[in-house]
Amino acid sequence: MGGLWFTEKQTENFGITIKVNKTLHTEQTEFQKLDMVETPEFGNMLFLDGMVMTSQKDEFVYHEMMAHPVLNTHPNPENVLVVGGGDGGVIREIMKHEKVKKATLVEIDGKVIEYSKKYLPEIAGELDNPRVEVKVDDGFMHIVKSKNMYDVIMVDSTEPVGPAVPLFERGFYQGIYEALKEDGMFVAQTDNPWFKADLIRKVNKDIKEIFPITKAYHANIPTYPSGIWIFQIGSKKYDPEAVDINSIPERETKYYTPRLHHAAFVLPKFVEDLVK
Amino acid sequence: MGGLWFTEKQTENFGITIKVNKTLHTEQTEFQKLDMVETPEFGNMLFLDGMVMTSQKDEFVYHEMMAHPVLNTHPNPENVLVVGGGDGGVIREIMKHEKVKKATLVEIDGKVIEYSKKYLPEIAGELDNPRVEVKVDDGFMHIVKSKNMYDVIMVDSTEPVGPAVPLFERGFYQGIYEALKEDGMFVAQTDNPWFKADLIRKVNKDIKEIFPITKAYHANIPTYPSGIWIFQIGSKKYDPEAVDINSIPERETKYYTPRLHHAAFVLPKFVEDLVK
Repeated sequence: MGGLWFTEKQTENFGITIKVNKTLHTEQTEFQKLDMVETPEFGNMLFLDGMVMTSQKDEFVYHEMMAHPVLNTHPNPENVLVVGGGDGGVIREIMKHEKVKKATLVEIDGKVIEYSKKYLPEIAGELDNPRVEVKVDDGFMHIVKSKNMYDVIMVDSTEPVGPAVPLFERGFYQGIYEALKEDGMFVAQTDNPWFKADLIRKVNKDIKEIFPITKAYHANIPTYPSGIWIFQIGSKKYDPEAVDINSIPERETKYYTPRLHHAAFVLPKFVEDLVK
Repeated sequence: MGGLWFTEKQTENFGITIKVNKTLHTEQTEFQKLDMVETPEFGNMLFLDGMVMTSQKDEFVYHEMMAHPVLNTHPNPENVLVVGGGDGGVIREIMKHEKVKKATLVEIDGKVIEYSKKYLPEIAGELDNPRVEVKVDDGFMHIVKSKNMYDVIMVDSTEPVGPAVPLFERGFYQGIYEALKEDGMFVAQTDNPWFKADLIRKVNKDIKEIFPITKAYHANIPTYPSGIWIFQIGSKKYDPEAVDINSIPERETKYYTPRLHHAAFVLPKFVEDLVK
Protein backbone atom coordinates (compact mmCIF):
# COMPACT_ATOMS: atom_id res chain seq x y z
CA MET A 1 0.00 0.00 0.00
CA GLY A 2 3.01 2.33 -0.38
CA GLY A 3 2.76 5.80 -1.90
CA LEU A 4 -0.15 8.20 -2.19
CA TRP A 5 -3.70 6.88 -1.85
CA PHE A 6 -6.97 8.80 -1.99
CA THR A 7 -9.54 7.32 0.39
CA GLU A 8 -13.23 8.17 0.20
CA LYS A 9 -15.28 7.19 3.20
CA GLN A 10 -18.52 6.26 1.44
CA THR A 11 -20.13 5.64 4.81
CA GLU A 12 -18.93 6.05 8.37
CA ASN A 13 -17.61 2.49 8.26
CA PHE A 14 -16.78 1.77 4.62
CA GLY A 15 -14.58 3.34 2.00
CA ILE A 16 -12.71 2.94 -1.23
CA THR A 17 -9.03 3.67 -1.59
CA ILE A 18 -7.38 4.57 -4.88
CA LYS A 19 -3.68 4.78 -5.71
CA VAL A 20 -2.76 8.25 -6.92
CA ASN A 21 0.15 9.05 -9.23
CA LYS A 22 -0.08 12.75 -8.58
CA THR A 23 -2.43 15.56 -7.66
CA LEU A 24 -3.23 17.71 -10.70
CA HIS A 25 -5.15 20.43 -8.87
CA THR A 26 -6.50 21.03 -5.37
CA GLU A 27 -8.59 24.01 -4.40
CA GLN A 28 -11.21 25.11 -1.92
CA THR A 29 -13.62 26.83 -4.32
CA GLU A 30 -16.39 29.16 -3.23
CA PHE A 31 -18.63 26.09 -2.87
CA GLN A 32 -16.63 22.96 -2.19
CA LYS A 33 -13.27 21.22 -2.03
CA LEU A 34 -12.13 20.31 -5.55
CA ASP A 35 -9.46 17.67 -6.16
CA MET A 36 -8.30 16.53 -9.58
CA VAL A 37 -5.91 13.59 -9.39
CA GLU A 38 -4.19 11.22 -11.81
CA THR A 39 -4.62 7.53 -10.95
CA PRO A 40 -3.25 4.35 -12.55
CA GLU A 41 -6.57 2.47 -12.18
CA PHE A 42 -9.17 5.00 -13.30
CA GLY A 43 -7.22 7.69 -15.19
CA ASN A 44 -7.84 11.29 -14.17
CA MET A 45 -10.48 11.68 -11.49
CA LEU A 46 -12.51 14.56 -10.12
CA PHE A 47 -13.43 14.63 -6.43
CA LEU A 48 -15.75 17.20 -4.82
CA ASP A 49 -15.78 17.40 -1.02
CA GLY A 50 -13.81 14.15 -1.00
CA MET A 51 -16.40 12.23 -3.06
CA VAL A 52 -15.68 10.69 -6.46
CA MET A 53 -17.54 12.68 -9.12
CA THR A 54 -16.16 11.09 -12.22
CA SER A 55 -13.21 9.14 -13.62
CA GLN A 56 -11.97 8.71 -17.14
CA LYS A 57 -12.38 4.93 -16.89
CA ASP A 58 -15.99 4.63 -15.78
CA GLU A 59 -17.57 8.04 -16.52
CA PHE A 60 -19.42 6.71 -19.53
CA VAL A 61 -21.85 4.73 -17.38
CA TYR A 62 -23.23 7.65 -15.41
CA HIS A 63 -23.30 10.05 -18.33
CA GLU A 64 -24.92 7.68 -20.82
CA MET A 65 -27.44 6.41 -18.30
CA MET A 66 -28.51 9.90 -17.29
CA ALA A 67 -28.96 11.16 -20.85
CA HIS A 68 -30.23 8.37 -23.10
CA PRO A 69 -33.22 6.86 -21.26
CA VAL A 70 -35.14 10.16 -21.15
CA LEU A 71 -33.97 11.43 -24.53
CA ASN A 72 -35.05 8.15 -26.14
CA THR A 73 -38.43 8.43 -24.40
CA HIS A 74 -39.39 12.04 -25.16
CA PRO A 75 -40.36 12.21 -28.86
CA ASN A 76 -39.13 15.74 -29.39
CA PRO A 77 -36.59 16.87 -26.79
CA GLU A 78 -35.64 20.18 -28.43
CA ASN A 79 -34.84 22.20 -25.35
CA VAL A 80 -32.86 20.47 -22.60
CA LEU A 81 -31.57 21.75 -19.26
CA VAL A 82 -28.79 20.20 -17.19
CA VAL A 83 -28.55 21.31 -13.56
CA GLY A 84 -25.02 20.71 -12.30
CA GLY A 85 -22.92 18.43 -14.47
CA GLY A 86 -20.06 20.90 -14.88
CA ASP A 87 -17.72 18.16 -16.06
CA GLY A 88 -19.71 18.15 -19.31
CA GLY A 89 -20.24 14.41 -19.58
CA VAL A 90 -24.02 14.55 -19.71
CA ILE A 91 -23.84 17.34 -22.28
CA ARG A 92 -21.59 15.17 -24.44
CA GLU A 93 -24.20 12.41 -24.45
CA ILE A 94 -27.05 14.87 -25.10
CA MET A 95 -25.21 16.15 -28.16
CA LYS A 96 -25.52 12.66 -29.70
CA HIS A 97 -29.25 13.42 -30.08
CA GLU A 98 -29.87 15.39 -33.24
CA LYS A 99 -33.36 16.39 -32.11
CA VAL A 100 -31.89 18.51 -29.34
CA LYS A 101 -31.69 22.08 -30.64
CA LYS A 102 -30.38 23.60 -27.47
CA ALA A 103 -28.90 22.31 -24.22
CA THR A 104 -28.36 24.67 -21.30
CA LEU A 105 -25.94 23.76 -18.53
CA VAL A 106 -26.35 25.58 -15.23
CA GLU A 107 -23.42 24.75 -12.96
CA ILE A 108 -23.00 26.61 -9.69
CA ASP A 109 -19.23 26.18 -9.54
CA GLY A 110 -17.27 27.58 -12.49
CA LYS A 111 -14.12 25.90 -11.22
CA VAL A 112 -15.62 22.47 -11.96
CA ILE A 113 -16.05 23.50 -15.60
CA GLU A 114 -12.61 25.09 -15.80
CA TYR A 115 -10.69 22.11 -14.44
CA SER A 116 -12.78 19.53 -16.25
CA LYS A 117 -11.94 21.24 -19.55
CA LYS A 118 -8.29 21.18 -18.57
CA TYR A 119 -7.94 17.66 -17.18
CA LEU A 120 -10.96 15.73 -18.52
CA PRO A 121 -11.10 16.98 -22.11
CA GLU A 122 -12.80 13.87 -23.55
CA ILE A 123 -15.59 14.37 -21.02
CA ALA A 124 -15.90 18.16 -21.27
CA GLY A 125 -15.24 18.47 -25.01
CA GLU A 126 -18.82 19.20 -26.08
CA LEU A 127 -19.26 22.14 -23.70
CA ASP A 128 -18.09 24.33 -26.60
CA ASN A 129 -20.66 22.87 -29.01
CA PRO A 130 -22.70 25.76 -30.55
CA ARG A 131 -25.91 24.00 -29.45
CA VAL A 132 -24.77 24.32 -25.82
CA GLU A 133 -25.12 27.31 -23.52
CA VAL A 134 -23.09 27.21 -20.32
CA LYS A 135 -24.21 29.32 -17.36
CA VAL A 136 -22.32 29.57 -14.10
CA ASP A 137 -25.29 30.07 -11.83
CA ASP A 138 -27.40 28.59 -9.05
CA GLY A 139 -29.43 25.75 -10.56
CA PHE A 140 -32.11 25.97 -7.90
CA MET A 141 -32.73 29.67 -8.69
CA HIS A 142 -32.60 28.99 -12.42
CA ILE A 143 -35.37 26.42 -11.99
CA VAL A 144 -37.46 28.80 -9.88
CA LYS A 145 -37.28 31.47 -12.63
CA SER A 146 -38.09 29.08 -15.51
CA LYS A 147 -41.74 28.40 -16.40
CA ASN A 148 -43.03 26.08 -19.11
CA MET A 149 -39.69 26.22 -20.84
CA TYR A 150 -37.94 22.85 -21.12
CA ASP A 151 -38.76 19.51 -22.72
CA VAL A 152 -36.25 17.64 -20.59
CA ILE A 153 -34.39 18.51 -17.39
CA MET A 154 -31.51 16.45 -16.02
CA VAL A 155 -30.31 16.94 -12.46
CA ASP A 156 -26.65 15.93 -12.41
CA SER A 157 -25.83 16.90 -8.85
CA THR A 158 -23.46 15.63 -6.22
CA GLU A 159 -24.86 13.64 -3.34
CA PRO A 160 -26.96 15.79 -0.97
CA VAL A 161 -23.93 17.46 0.61
CA GLY A 162 -22.83 21.10 0.32
CA PRO A 163 -24.35 23.07 -2.56
CA ALA A 164 -26.48 20.11 -3.71
CA VAL A 165 -28.64 19.90 -0.56
CA PRO A 166 -31.55 21.98 -1.98
CA LEU A 167 -31.59 19.79 -5.09
CA PHE A 168 -33.08 16.94 -3.08
CA GLU A 169 -35.98 18.98 -1.61
CA ARG A 170 -39.60 18.51 -2.58
CA GLY A 171 -39.83 22.21 -3.49
CA PHE A 172 -37.14 21.73 -6.11
CA TYR A 173 -39.12 18.96 -7.83
CA GLN A 174 -42.20 21.21 -7.80
CA GLY A 175 -40.07 23.91 -9.47
CA ILE A 176 -38.93 21.40 -12.07
CA TYR A 177 -42.54 20.49 -12.78
CA GLU A 178 -43.31 24.12 -13.51
CA ALA A 179 -40.12 24.67 -15.55
CA LEU A 180 -41.11 21.80 -17.84
CA LYS A 181 -43.47 22.10 -20.79
CA GLU A 182 -46.81 20.30 -20.59
CA ASP A 183 -45.29 17.06 -21.90
CA GLY A 184 -41.91 17.47 -20.23
CA MET A 185 -39.93 14.99 -18.17
CA PHE A 186 -36.91 15.01 -15.90
CA VAL A 187 -34.33 12.67 -14.44
CA ALA A 188 -32.20 12.97 -11.31
CA GLN A 189 -29.57 10.77 -9.75
CA THR A 190 -30.72 9.66 -6.32
CA ASP A 191 -27.71 7.82 -4.89
CA ASN A 192 -27.55 4.15 -3.93
CA PRO A 193 -29.96 1.74 -2.25
CA TRP A 194 -27.44 0.01 0.03
CA PHE A 195 -26.36 2.99 2.11
CA LYS A 196 -28.98 5.62 1.21
CA ALA A 197 -32.24 3.71 1.15
CA ASP A 198 -34.10 6.47 3.01
CA LEU A 199 -33.06 9.10 0.46
CA ILE A 200 -34.28 7.00 -2.45
CA ARG A 201 -37.57 6.34 -0.67
CA LYS A 202 -38.06 10.04 0.12
CA VAL A 203 -37.21 11.33 -3.36
CA ASN A 204 -39.43 8.73 -4.99
CA LYS A 205 -42.32 9.72 -2.71
CA ASP A 206 -41.79 13.43 -3.39
CA ILE A 207 -41.70 12.98 -7.16
CA LYS A 208 -44.73 10.66 -7.11
CA GLU A 209 -46.78 13.36 -5.41
CA ILE A 210 -45.97 15.81 -8.21
CA PHE A 211 -45.62 13.86 -11.47
CA PRO A 212 -48.18 11.45 -12.93
CA ILE A 213 -45.43 9.07 -14.11
CA THR A 214 -42.55 8.19 -11.78
CA LYS A 215 -39.98 5.51 -12.56
CA ALA A 216 -36.64 4.45 -11.11
CA TYR A 217 -33.82 2.68 -12.92
CA HIS A 218 -30.29 1.58 -12.12
CA ALA A 219 -26.77 1.29 -13.48
CA ASN A 220 -23.46 -0.12 -12.26
CA ILE A 221 -20.82 2.50 -11.43
CA PRO A 222 -17.71 0.98 -9.83
CA THR A 223 -16.35 4.18 -8.28
CA TYR A 224 -19.68 5.16 -6.66
CA PRO A 225 -20.79 3.80 -3.28
CA SER A 226 -21.99 0.18 -3.49
CA GLY A 227 -21.47 0.05 -7.26
CA ILE A 228 -25.17 0.42 -8.06
CA TRP A 229 -26.71 3.79 -8.75
CA ILE A 230 -30.35 4.83 -8.93
CA PHE A 231 -31.85 7.37 -11.31
CA GLN A 232 -35.37 8.65 -10.88
CA ILE A 233 -37.63 9.94 -13.63
CA GLY A 234 -40.64 12.20 -13.25
CA SER A 235 -42.70 12.62 -16.40
CA LYS A 236 -45.89 14.49 -17.30
CA LYS A 237 -46.84 12.37 -20.30
CA TYR A 238 -44.31 9.89 -21.67
CA ASP A 239 -43.58 6.55 -20.00
CA PRO A 240 -39.95 5.40 -20.42
CA GLU A 241 -41.06 1.78 -20.06
CA ALA A 242 -43.48 2.13 -22.98
CA VAL A 243 -40.73 2.94 -25.47
CA ASP A 244 -40.50 0.66 -28.51
CA ILE A 245 -36.83 -0.22 -28.54
CA ASN A 246 -36.93 -0.81 -32.27
CA SER A 247 -37.55 2.92 -32.65
CA ILE A 248 -34.29 3.83 -30.89
CA PRO A 249 -31.53 4.74 -33.36
CA GLU A 250 -28.12 3.15 -32.94
CA ARG A 251 -25.76 5.56 -31.19
CA GLU A 252 -22.18 5.04 -30.13
CA THR A 253 -22.30 4.02 -26.48
CA LYS A 254 -20.32 1.79 -24.15
CA TYR A 255 -22.99 1.00 -21.55
CA TYR A 256 -26.49 1.93 -22.77
CA THR A 257 -28.19 -0.21 -25.40
CA PRO A 258 -31.82 -0.22 -26.49
CA ARG A 259 -32.34 -3.59 -24.77
CA LEU A 260 -30.78 -2.21 -21.60
CA HIS A 261 -33.23 0.70 -21.77
CA HIS A 262 -35.92 -1.63 -20.50
CA ALA A 263 -33.76 -3.91 -18.36
CA ALA A 264 -32.49 -0.92 -16.36
CA PHE A 265 -36.01 -0.36 -15.01
CA VAL A 266 -36.22 -3.89 -13.65
CA LEU A 267 -34.93 -3.41 -10.12
CA PRO A 268 -33.68 -5.88 -7.55
CA LYS A 269 -36.48 -6.79 -5.16
CA PHE A 270 -35.18 -4.77 -2.21
CA VAL A 271 -34.84 -1.69 -4.42
CA GLU A 272 -38.29 -2.19 -5.94
CA ASP A 273 -39.62 -2.18 -2.39
CA LEU A 274 -38.08 1.28 -1.80
CA VAL A 275 -39.86 2.91 -4.75
CA LYS A 276 -43.23 1.16 -4.68
CA MET B 1 -10.33 6.50 10.11
CA GLY B 2 -9.38 5.49 13.66
CA GLY B 3 -9.47 1.91 14.90
CA LEU B 4 -9.24 -1.37 13.04
CA TRP B 5 -9.91 -1.47 9.30
CA PHE B 6 -9.76 -4.44 6.90
CA THR B 7 -8.50 -3.37 3.50
CA GLU B 8 -8.86 -5.58 0.43
CA LYS B 9 -6.76 -4.58 -2.53
CA GLN B 10 -9.17 -5.52 -5.30
CA THR B 11 -6.53 -4.57 -7.87
CA GLU B 12 -2.94 -3.38 -7.58
CA ASN B 13 -4.21 0.19 -7.42
CA PHE B 14 -7.69 0.03 -5.91
CA GLY B 15 -9.21 -1.32 -2.75
CA ILE B 16 -12.07 -1.24 -0.30
CA THR B 17 -11.61 -0.61 3.39
CA ILE B 18 -14.05 -1.77 6.04
CA LYS B 19 -14.22 -0.81 9.70
CA VAL B 20 -13.90 -3.86 11.93
CA ASN B 21 -15.31 -4.16 15.44
CA LYS B 22 -13.35 -7.29 16.18
CA THR B 23 -11.79 -10.35 14.64
CA LEU B 24 -13.85 -13.45 15.36
CA HIS B 25 -11.41 -15.99 13.94
CA THR B 26 -8.18 -15.96 11.97
CA GLU B 27 -6.46 -19.07 10.70
CA GLN B 28 -4.14 -20.27 7.98
CA THR B 29 -6.02 -23.40 6.93
CA GLU B 30 -4.54 -26.17 4.83
CA PHE B 31 -5.65 -24.22 1.75
CA GLN B 32 -5.95 -20.53 2.46
CA LYS B 33 -5.98 -17.69 4.96
CA LEU B 34 -9.39 -17.52 6.64
CA ASP B 35 -10.59 -14.38 8.45
CA MET B 36 -13.98 -13.99 10.07
CA VAL B 37 -14.60 -10.47 11.31
CA GLU B 38 -17.46 -8.48 12.80
CA THR B 39 -18.12 -5.16 11.07
CA PRO B 40 -20.60 -2.37 11.75
CA GLU B 41 -21.42 -1.85 8.05
CA PHE B 42 -21.84 -5.38 6.74
CA GLY B 43 -22.30 -7.56 9.83
CA ASN B 44 -20.10 -10.63 10.08
CA MET B 45 -17.85 -11.15 7.08
CA LEU B 46 -15.80 -14.04 5.74
CA PHE B 47 -12.53 -13.31 3.96
CA LEU B 48 -10.40 -15.94 2.19
CA ASP B 49 -6.85 -14.99 1.22
CA GLY B 50 -7.78 -11.39 2.03
CA MET B 51 -10.75 -11.30 -0.38
CA VAL B 52 -14.35 -10.74 0.72
CA MET B 53 -16.28 -13.96 0.30
CA THR B 54 -19.53 -12.99 1.92
CA SER B 55 -21.13 -10.63 4.38
CA GLN B 56 -24.36 -10.84 6.32
CA LYS B 57 -25.61 -7.62 4.74
CA ASP B 58 -25.21 -8.37 1.03
CA GLU B 59 -24.83 -12.17 0.83
CA PHE B 60 -28.34 -12.63 -0.48
CA VAL B 61 -27.45 -11.16 -3.86
CA TYR B 62 -24.75 -13.63 -4.77
CA HIS B 63 -26.51 -16.65 -3.32
CA GLU B 64 -29.91 -15.93 -4.87
CA MET B 65 -28.42 -15.02 -8.22
CA MET B 66 -26.33 -18.16 -8.41
CA ALA B 67 -29.18 -20.51 -7.51
CA HIS B 68 -32.46 -19.25 -8.93
CA PRO B 69 -31.75 -18.49 -12.61
CA VAL B 70 -30.68 -22.08 -13.38
CA LEU B 71 -33.14 -23.77 -11.05
CA ASN B 72 -35.99 -21.79 -12.61
CA THR B 73 -34.76 -22.78 -16.08
CA HIS B 74 -34.22 -26.52 -15.66
CA PRO B 75 -37.68 -28.17 -15.54
CA ASN B 76 -36.64 -30.96 -13.20
CA PRO B 77 -33.51 -30.21 -11.18
CA GLU B 78 -33.63 -33.24 -8.91
CA ASN B 79 -29.93 -33.76 -8.36
CA VAL B 80 -27.80 -30.67 -7.80
CA LEU B 81 -24.08 -30.28 -7.11
CA VAL B 82 -22.40 -27.25 -5.58
CA VAL B 83 -18.62 -27.03 -5.98
CA GLY B 84 -17.19 -24.77 -3.28
CA GLY B 85 -19.74 -22.65 -1.45
CA GLY B 86 -18.79 -23.86 2.02
CA ASP B 87 -20.59 -20.94 3.63
CA GLY B 88 -23.85 -22.68 2.66
CA GLY B 89 -25.59 -19.66 1.12
CA VAL B 90 -26.17 -21.27 -2.27
CA ILE B 91 -27.44 -24.43 -0.57
CA ARG B 92 -29.92 -22.32 1.41
CA GLU B 93 -31.35 -20.90 -1.83
CA ILE B 94 -31.40 -24.34 -3.52
CA MET B 95 -33.47 -25.68 -0.63
CA LYS B 96 -36.24 -23.22 -1.58
CA HIS B 97 -36.82 -25.40 -4.67
CA GLU B 98 -39.04 -28.30 -3.80
CA LYS B 99 -38.12 -30.17 -7.00
CA VAL B 100 -34.57 -30.63 -5.72
CA LYS B 101 -34.39 -34.07 -4.14
CA LYS B 102 -30.71 -33.95 -3.31
CA ALA B 103 -28.04 -31.26 -3.19
CA THR B 104 -24.40 -32.25 -2.74
CA LEU B 105 -21.88 -29.69 -1.54
CA VAL B 106 -18.22 -30.43 -2.23
CA GLU B 107 -16.06 -27.91 -0.39
CA ILE B 108 -12.31 -28.39 -0.30
CA ASP B 109 -11.81 -26.54 2.97
CA GLY B 110 -13.71 -27.93 5.96
CA LYS B 111 -12.75 -24.88 7.99
CA VAL B 112 -14.93 -22.67 5.78
CA ILE B 113 -17.93 -24.84 6.67
CA GLU B 114 -17.01 -24.99 10.35
CA TYR B 115 -16.63 -21.25 10.84
CA SER B 116 -19.58 -20.34 8.62
CA LYS B 117 -21.82 -22.52 10.77
CA LYS B 118 -20.44 -20.79 13.85
CA TYR B 119 -20.45 -17.15 12.72
CA LEU B 120 -22.83 -17.01 9.73
CA PRO B 121 -25.67 -19.24 10.96
CA GLU B 122 -28.40 -17.60 8.83
CA ILE B 123 -26.27 -18.34 5.75
CA ALA B 124 -25.12 -21.84 6.68
CA GLY B 125 -28.33 -23.01 8.37
CA GLU B 126 -29.53 -25.31 5.59
CA LEU B 127 -26.30 -27.32 5.46
CA ASP B 128 -27.98 -29.67 7.94
CA ASN B 129 -31.10 -30.11 5.79
CA PRO B 130 -31.69 -33.86 5.21
CA ARG B 131 -31.78 -33.22 1.44
CA VAL B 132 -28.17 -31.95 1.62
CA GLU B 133 -24.99 -34.01 1.59
CA VAL B 134 -21.81 -32.17 2.58
CA LYS B 135 -18.47 -33.54 1.42
CA VAL B 136 -15.12 -32.06 2.36
CA ASP B 137 -13.27 -32.92 -0.80
CA ASP B 138 -11.57 -31.58 -3.91
CA GLY B 139 -14.32 -30.31 -6.22
CA PHE B 140 -12.17 -30.72 -9.31
CA MET B 141 -11.58 -34.40 -8.54
CA HIS B 142 -15.24 -34.91 -7.66
CA ILE B 143 -16.19 -33.58 -11.09
CA VAL B 144 -13.64 -35.81 -12.84
CA LYS B 145 -15.13 -38.89 -11.15
CA SER B 146 -18.77 -37.99 -11.84
CA LYS B 147 -20.35 -39.04 -15.15
CA ASN B 148 -23.89 -38.34 -16.33
CA MET B 149 -24.95 -37.73 -12.75
CA TYR B 150 -26.25 -34.19 -12.11
CA ASP B 151 -29.09 -32.10 -13.46
CA VAL B 152 -27.50 -28.86 -12.30
CA ILE B 153 -23.99 -27.95 -11.18
CA MET B 154 -23.11 -24.65 -9.50
CA VAL B 155 -19.50 -23.53 -9.20
CA ASP B 156 -19.33 -21.25 -6.18
CA SER B 157 -15.59 -20.71 -6.08
CA THR B 158 -13.32 -17.91 -4.98
CA GLU B 159 -11.65 -15.83 -7.63
CA PRO B 160 -8.94 -17.78 -9.50
CA VAL B 161 -6.43 -17.60 -6.66
CA GLY B 162 -5.20 -20.45 -4.47
CA PRO B 163 -7.29 -23.63 -4.50
CA ALA B 164 -9.75 -22.20 -7.06
CA VAL B 165 -7.25 -21.88 -9.93
CA PRO B 166 -8.16 -25.23 -11.59
CA LEU B 167 -11.86 -24.26 -11.47
CA PHE B 168 -11.29 -21.72 -14.24
CA GLU B 169 -9.59 -24.14 -16.66
CA ARG B 170 -11.14 -25.40 -19.87
CA GLY B 171 -10.62 -28.99 -18.72
CA PHE B 172 -12.82 -28.36 -15.70
CA TYR B 173 -15.71 -27.21 -17.90
CA GLN B 174 -15.27 -30.34 -20.02
CA GLY B 175 -15.47 -32.38 -16.83
CA ILE B 176 -18.65 -30.55 -15.85
CA TYR B 177 -20.14 -31.34 -19.25
CA GLU B 178 -19.53 -35.04 -18.65
CA ALA B 179 -20.74 -34.94 -15.04
CA LEU B 180 -24.07 -33.49 -16.20
CA LYS B 181 -26.98 -35.54 -17.50
CA GLU B 182 -27.94 -35.15 -21.14
CA ASP B 183 -30.15 -32.15 -20.40
CA GLY B 184 -27.99 -30.73 -17.62
CA MET B 185 -26.80 -27.19 -17.09
CA PHE B 186 -24.29 -25.37 -14.92
CA VAL B 187 -23.48 -21.92 -13.66
CA ALA B 188 -20.21 -20.44 -12.45
CA GLN B 189 -19.25 -17.04 -11.10
CA THR B 190 -16.68 -15.46 -13.41
CA ASP B 191 -15.65 -12.29 -11.59
CA ASN B 192 -16.15 -8.72 -12.81
CA PRO B 193 -15.84 -7.00 -16.19
CA TRP B 194 -14.05 -3.85 -15.02
CA PHE B 195 -10.88 -5.43 -13.67
CA LYS B 196 -11.07 -9.00 -15.02
CA ALA B 197 -12.31 -8.56 -18.58
CA ASP B 198 -9.81 -11.11 -19.94
CA LEU B 199 -11.00 -13.78 -17.53
CA ILE B 200 -14.64 -13.30 -18.50
CA ARG B 201 -13.73 -13.42 -22.19
CA LYS B 202 -11.68 -16.61 -21.73
CA VAL B 203 -14.25 -18.47 -19.63
CA ASN B 204 -17.03 -17.53 -22.04
CA LYS B 205 -14.99 -18.79 -24.99
CA ASP B 206 -14.11 -22.04 -23.19
CA ILE B 207 -17.72 -22.75 -22.24
CA LYS B 208 -18.97 -21.86 -25.73
CA GLU B 209 -16.67 -24.48 -27.22
CA ILE B 210 -18.20 -27.17 -25.01
CA PHE B 211 -21.86 -26.30 -24.42
CA PRO B 212 -24.48 -25.62 -27.11
CA ILE B 213 -26.07 -22.85 -25.01
CA THR B 214 -23.88 -20.29 -23.25
CA LYS B 215 -25.24 -17.22 -21.50
CA ALA B 216 -23.86 -14.58 -19.14
CA TYR B 217 -25.80 -12.54 -16.62
CA HIS B 218 -24.99 -10.00 -13.94
CA ALA B 219 -25.86 -8.82 -10.45
CA ASN B 220 -24.82 -5.97 -8.17
CA ILE B 221 -22.70 -7.02 -5.17
CA PRO B 222 -21.38 -4.03 -3.20
CA THR B 223 -18.56 -5.84 -1.40
CA TYR B 224 -17.18 -7.46 -4.58
CA PRO B 225 -14.74 -5.66 -6.90
CA SER B 226 -16.47 -3.01 -9.05
CA GLY B 227 -19.91 -3.85 -7.61
CA ILE B 228 -21.01 -5.81 -10.68
CA TRP B 229 -20.58 -9.55 -10.86
CA ILE B 230 -20.85 -11.90 -13.84
CA PHE B 231 -22.28 -15.41 -13.81
CA GLN B 232 -21.88 -17.71 -16.76
CA ILE B 233 -24.23 -20.53 -17.72
CA GLY B 234 -23.43 -23.52 -19.89
CA SER B 235 -26.44 -25.62 -20.84
CA LYS B 236 -27.00 -28.75 -22.93
CA LYS B 237 -30.67 -28.15 -23.67
CA TYR B 238 -32.52 -25.44 -21.75
CA ASP B 239 -32.16 -21.74 -22.53
CA PRO B 240 -32.47 -19.50 -19.45
CA GLU B 241 -33.65 -16.65 -21.66
CA ALA B 242 -36.53 -18.76 -23.00
CA VAL B 243 -38.13 -19.18 -19.57
CA ASP B 244 -41.73 -18.02 -19.27
CA ILE B 245 -41.59 -15.86 -16.16
CA ASN B 246 -45.25 -16.52 -15.45
CA SER B 247 -44.27 -20.13 -14.79
CA ILE B 248 -41.88 -19.16 -11.99
CA PRO B 249 -43.40 -19.67 -8.53
CA GLU B 250 -43.14 -16.86 -5.99
CA ARG B 251 -40.33 -17.54 -3.57
CA GLU B 252 -39.05 -15.43 -0.73
CA THR B 253 -36.10 -13.48 -2.11
CA LYS B 254 -34.54 -10.07 -1.58
CA TYR B 255 -32.83 -9.59 -4.95
CA TYR B 256 -34.08 -12.09 -7.56
CA THR B 257 -37.53 -11.66 -9.06
CA PRO B 258 -39.04 -13.37 -12.11
CA ARG B 259 -38.80 -10.08 -14.05
CA LEU B 260 -35.17 -9.75 -13.04
CA HIS B 261 -34.56 -13.27 -14.36
CA HIS B 262 -34.64 -11.85 -17.87
CA ALA B 263 -33.25 -8.39 -17.15
CA ALA B 264 -30.11 -9.92 -15.61
CA PHE B 265 -29.15 -11.35 -19.00
CA VAL B 266 -29.28 -7.91 -20.64
CA LEU B 267 -25.69 -6.78 -20.24
CA PRO B 268 -24.08 -3.37 -20.52
CA LYS B 269 -22.63 -2.90 -24.01
CA PHE B 270 -18.98 -3.27 -22.95
CA VAL B 271 -19.81 -6.52 -21.13
CA GLU B 272 -21.87 -7.83 -24.04
CA ASP B 273 -18.79 -7.28 -26.19
CA LEU B 274 -16.73 -9.54 -23.88
CA VAL B 275 -19.07 -12.52 -24.24
CA LYS B 276 -20.12 -12.26 -27.88
